[in-house]
Amino acid sequence: MSITFTIAPHSPNLVGALQTKIDQKTKPLGSLGQLEDLALQIGLCQNSLTPEINKPSILIFAGDHGIAESGVSAYPQSVTAQMVANFLQGGAAISVFARQHQIELLIVDAGVKTDLANHPKLIKAKIGHGTQSFLTQPAMTAEECDKAIITGARLVSDRHQQGCNCIGFGEMGIGNTSSAALLMHKLTHTPLADCVGRGTGLDDAQLLAKLAILQQAIAHHGDIQTPLAVLATFGGFEIAMMVGAYLQAAELGMLIMVDGFIASSALLVAYRLYPQVLDYCIFSHVSHELGHKTLLAYFNRNALLNLDLRLGEGSGIALAFPLLQSAVLFLNDMASFEEAGVDH
Amino acid sequence: MSITFTIAPHSPNLVGALQTKIDQKTKPLGSLGQLEDLALQIGLCQNSLTPEINKPSILIFAGDHGIAESGVSAYPQSVTAQMVANFLQGGAAISVFARQHQIELLIVDAGVKTDLANHPKLIKAKIGHGTQSFLTQPAMTAEECDKAIITGARLVSDRHQQGCNCIGFGEMGIGNTSSAALLMHKLTHTPLADCVGRGTGLDDAQLLAKLAILQQAIAHHGDIQTPLAVLATFGGFEIAMMVGAYLQAAELGMLIMVDGFIASSALLVAYRLYPQVLDYCIFSHVSHELGHKTLLAYFNRNALLNLDLRLGEGSGIALAFPLLQSAVLFLNDMASFEEAGVDH
Repeated sequence: MSITFTIAPHSPNLVGALQTKIDQKTKPLGSLGQLEDLALQIGLCQNSLTPEINKPSILIFAGDHGIAESGVSAYPQSVTAQMVANFLQGGAAISVFARQHQIELLIVDAGVKTDLANHPKLIKAKIGHGTQSFLTQPAMTAEECDKAIITGARLVSDRHQQGCNCIGFGEMGIGNTSSAALLMHKLTHTPLADCVGRGTGLDDAQLLAKLAILQQAIAHHGDIQTPLAVLATFGGFEIAMMVGAYLQAAELGMLIMVDGFIASSALLVAYRLYPQVLDYCIFSHVSHELGHKTLLAYFNRNALLNLDLRLGEGSGIALAFPLLQSAVLFLNDMASFEEAGVDH
Repeated sequence: MSITFTIAPHSPNLVGALQTKIDQKTKPLGSLGQLEDLALQIGLCQNSLTPEINKPSILIFAGDHGIAESGVSAYPQSVTAQMVANFLQGGAAISVFARQHQIELLIVDAGVKTDLANHPKLIKAKIGHGTQSFLTQPAMTAEECDKAIITGARLVSDRHQQGCNCIGFGEMGIGNTSSAALLMHKLTHTPLADCVGRGTGLDDAQLLAKLAILQQAIAHHGDIQTPLAVLATFGGFEIAMMVGAYLQAAELGMLIMVDGFIASSALLVAYRLYPQVLDYCIFSHVSHELGHKTLLAYFNRNALLNLDLRLGEGSGIALAFPLLQSAVLFLNDMASFEEAGVDH
């Protein structure tokens, strides 16, 4: 990788002061549950007793996958570009939820097969017209993978320069649960069958076929082990861009909101390169997609929502975002026992 | 009970049309998980394919409990009135979260021991200066219980007349997890030990003492079975008011947001009187308080959030509220496959 990152783990300096501030709020000790852990994490990310969320942003990375030609998805590859148009027109789930919470939403063409028309919300950063099928060759070259990571990092730096300190990454790419399953299998050694789910809605027979295809791909490529080699061989352009995006966001000390299975598989690569990236990550939800719960356990982290979502697009991030705001608001605005004159 | 309610169960007329509308949105079938169930329920509550949430409101019912003198809580009874003042000053958790989501917040003095000063957000509806201790006598008379139910119903009608169609009920009352545990035990026949939790933060010895006190109370009153007799014997004024509030809200076809353990124990009484009240209820969260998960299973319902909250005040309602908005927004604003020109 031709780019390196400098990610500082959290300083423990403020742990005591933040916990004391939380404990002195007018509520029984610990009674805000996971929201208290979240407030502590956000305070540590910003190294502040009065953290704030500024200009929250979601980038959706879109890319096509050669493997989609082999019948691993319930939808045709053309849907990737069609859904990008839907995001831009404001009709997708993530469009609706991002509007609801005033989250900036930008779409990145990381490698959609089709050439896309210009649009103010579309960032054209195509690495290629879809990946190669990893059934017969690596999905991308090492150079393409490197370029994607650098591009993801640059896009996050751009948002940061605009004043954004809280960012999340969504994805769109027909076939990309197959990539995510292989990244998880190769980098965590979880049995493949426990990494492969129904994606957009495969039936039992289609699920078995998907599993067989992925086993064939693993056999074809043999013993690949390093995170970057696994990423280039089985990944997607949108996934590789997310890797760079996570690492750059952590380097900049931003709050990072993590979406579902595919977003977490990209984080897995980033984590294997720089484990301290996790300090900055808030897991928005646990997906219905098989494997995500296991992946969260691998990270040893809880998610905020458990609503059986399996949509991608960053939809879980947008739905969980108000909880981040709530954590910051209770830390900053709730009265202490002393301020309110409440016995304790 | 001198008041009766007419609660219509959901008409199944729109089930098919609502499900079709949900399924035609630009997303894989079922991929918004529990949010899809929620959209369906809200559509059925309003008997509409384009439901809307208007003037959401939370009423916090506050009352004191004679049993609090017996050491069942980590806090003294004086905290009830002090917390009411904190709600009114805007410093409590629910104050912060209600402001965040522009939910109207009103406090009802259902039976606080102290006399409270006037305040524009305080509704004075005191049934008594705290309940009697149910260790030695019924917490309230049948007449007081009746009056509380009628008052709760009237307050909900007032909100409805102001244009509110989505309401939630919080509570504040030192000692009221003891009432809630006894209501649950008597009305669901769950073993008492599985209904009694740590409330505001009891240690192991205090928890055992709480359990012993409640066993003594059960023995003292003998075989009480009807929902209203159980409510009058072991309940609180704030709990009885919530019973009337739930039933009136259901009669008016309002969306009802249910908070944690105590709020659910009041709903249990309402449910035993009019089971169809559940059609209108959205469970905001599953509490950390022992017993709440069992109570949700008794209702056969899932909750939206599982964040180990155990604060009461309606805090879980406010935190879950954006998910109700999201359900309505995706149903109304997301593009269909046809509208967006996406293959499926």
